[in-house]
Amino acid sequence: MNFNLTILGTGSAIPSFGRFSSSQILQTHNKSFMIDCADGTQFQLRKYEVKTNRMGHVFISHLHGDHCFGLISVISTLGMLHHTNDMYIHAHPDLKKTLQPQLDYFCKDLTFKVYFEDFDPLKNEVIYEDRSIKVSTIPLVHSMPTCGFLFKEKEGLPHIDGELVKFYEIGVKEIKDIKNGADFIDDNGRVVPNSRLITPPTPPKSYAYCSDTAYTERIIPIIEGVDTLFHEATFAEAERHRCKATLHSTASDAAHIAQMANVKQLIIGHYSARYADLNPLLDEAKAIFPNTKLSTDGSKFSW
Amino acid sequence: MNFNLTILGTGSAIPSFGRFSSSQILQTHNKSFMIDCADGTQFQLRKYEVKTNRMGHVFISHLHGDHCFGLISVISTLGMLHHTNDMYIHAHPDLKKTLQPQLDYFCKDLTFKVYFEDFDPLKNEVIYEDRSIKVSTIPLVHSMPTCGFLFKEKEGLPHIDGELVKFYEIGVKEIKDIKNGADFIDDNGRVVPNSRLITPPTPPKSYAYCSDTAYTERIIPIIEGVDTLFHEATFAEAERHRCKATLHSTASDAAHIAQMANVKQLIIGHYSARYADLNPLLDEAKAIFPNTKLSTDGSKFSW
Repeated sequence: MNFNLTILGTGSAIPSFGRFSSSQILQTHNKSFMIDCADGTQFQLRKYEVKTNRMGHVFISHLHGDHCFGLISVISTLGMLHHTNDMYIHAHPDLKKTLQPQLDYFCKDLTFKVYFEDFDPLKNEVIYEDRSIKVSTIPLVHSMPTCGFLFKEKEGLPHIDGELVKFYEIGVKEIKDIKNGADFIDDNGRVVPNSRLITPPTPPKSYAYCSDTAYTERIIPIIEGVDTLFHEATFAEAERHRCKATLHSTASDAAHIAQMANVKQLIIGHYSARYADLNPLLDEAKAIFPNTKLSTDGSKFSW
Repeated sequence: MNFNLTILGTGSAIPSFGRFSSSQILQTHNKSFMIDCADGTQFQLRKYEVKTNRMGHVFISHLHGDHCFGLISVISTLGMLHHTNDMYIHAHPDLKKTLQPQLDYFCKDLTFKVYFEDFDPLKNEVIYEDRSIKVSTIPLVHSMPTCGFLFKEKEGLPHIDGELVKFYEIGVKEIKDIKNGADFIDDNGRVVPNSRLITPPTPPKSYAYCSDTAYTERIIPIIEGVDTLFHEATFAEAERHRCKATLHSTASDAAHIAQMANVKQLIIGHYSARYADLNPLLDEAKAIFPNTKLSTDGSKFSW
């Protein structure tokens, strides 16, 4: 099933040129997953007409304000809008310590429950799983414990040929059995082998979000071959010297990682407040990894 | 000295039609006072090019999220911008309980100090005073302890006639004495009476901010005759029935208060999410109090 990504903010910590800070929505399999939630995210959700009724899981990469200060407002407003899905916040355990007192004071009458699901950002592990999607952490290199997230669709069942279903008059129960590997036996006892009836399942979709991070090749085995990689590109080459102190990446760093990990598409974002024009960052990345896209607030990508 | 008001958000609790929630900046006497601070206020400050270097006092009317959730981001970003003025947050004592844990965790290396100045919103009292301005609370009627704020310039010294200063060759020290009531005695011992030298001081400016509140005439003696009254106007007449449950006002309520308090100018705001077109609210208020202005995000008023 398609992955639909809406980028709500592409600025880094200090807002500039109308760019909001980090937040994204990944929609697939009738669910909306929020990734990071900067101050003002609730306005961006409405501005870009993101449906929130299916939202139940928020993944926070790290506890810098430009990645989590908007959560209390999003939750409070969803409460006023009579949202019903319970909300699971996947984050470093410290988030609960600062957010819970706010929830207790400001959000007493929520129409849904809020649960904190702690994880250790320094480990690569599965932190969420349902029947269609698995989310795992991608340990990153930043000034505090930080991880990215890999969203991976589970392998589906094979497809069954619709013409053959009609021809052999195959029933619903048998279709399920065939998809799970059974042969088909018709009323006359003739066996149609499974391999004649099925075609391979659609390749599972995947998305890797990596922000904030310094250049690190340690993530490559985890994100290898993903359909789309979002990698932060805070700086252009001219400001490479700033990466060391701030533990961020340049656009070419992002492109090198995309190339080495053999991903299909790279999206860059999390731009420093110094850049009014982002095209130089795009050009620098494209020179290394041609299939690079520039994200701007409100950008939508589907694959 | 002029009062310059920038309205940063005019929506009520649920964001709509691109309107941010409550926050304003009042600039006068080389200072910037912030009134309320909803989620996203830091973006509005930059969007409307508000200078923040003189900002040191924030006044929070009440502890609903659409009036205070943006504070942590404003403080955190000012820290990153190396702001140096210490920040005094004037609010109900409960704000400190929820904000301090966040400050302790997220804002460890601030370049300025944050102090909480508690007050009781149910009393009418002076909560801030410097040599030019006095701020007092205006108890309001809402679903939690809430107050407005009256900003009143102190009466200045009389003006001295520049032509007479030249004519009598009056020195700097004597000018000060004359402004404080002394007569002038020239080198020949001739006395020029004080009343010949001075003209009355400029009338002090004033601003009353009243949001959120149900209609209440109890505020009238406090705001009597102010230059500008900002009064919430969440609903139009057609939705008057909603005021009772939500403890908000209609545009005509605001106008009635402005008329009875004999203010010079009324600004309305804090509009319900249901109104795309705000002109009906303006019309309703103007029918009662003609000098009513509609605020929109980014509106600037000077008097």
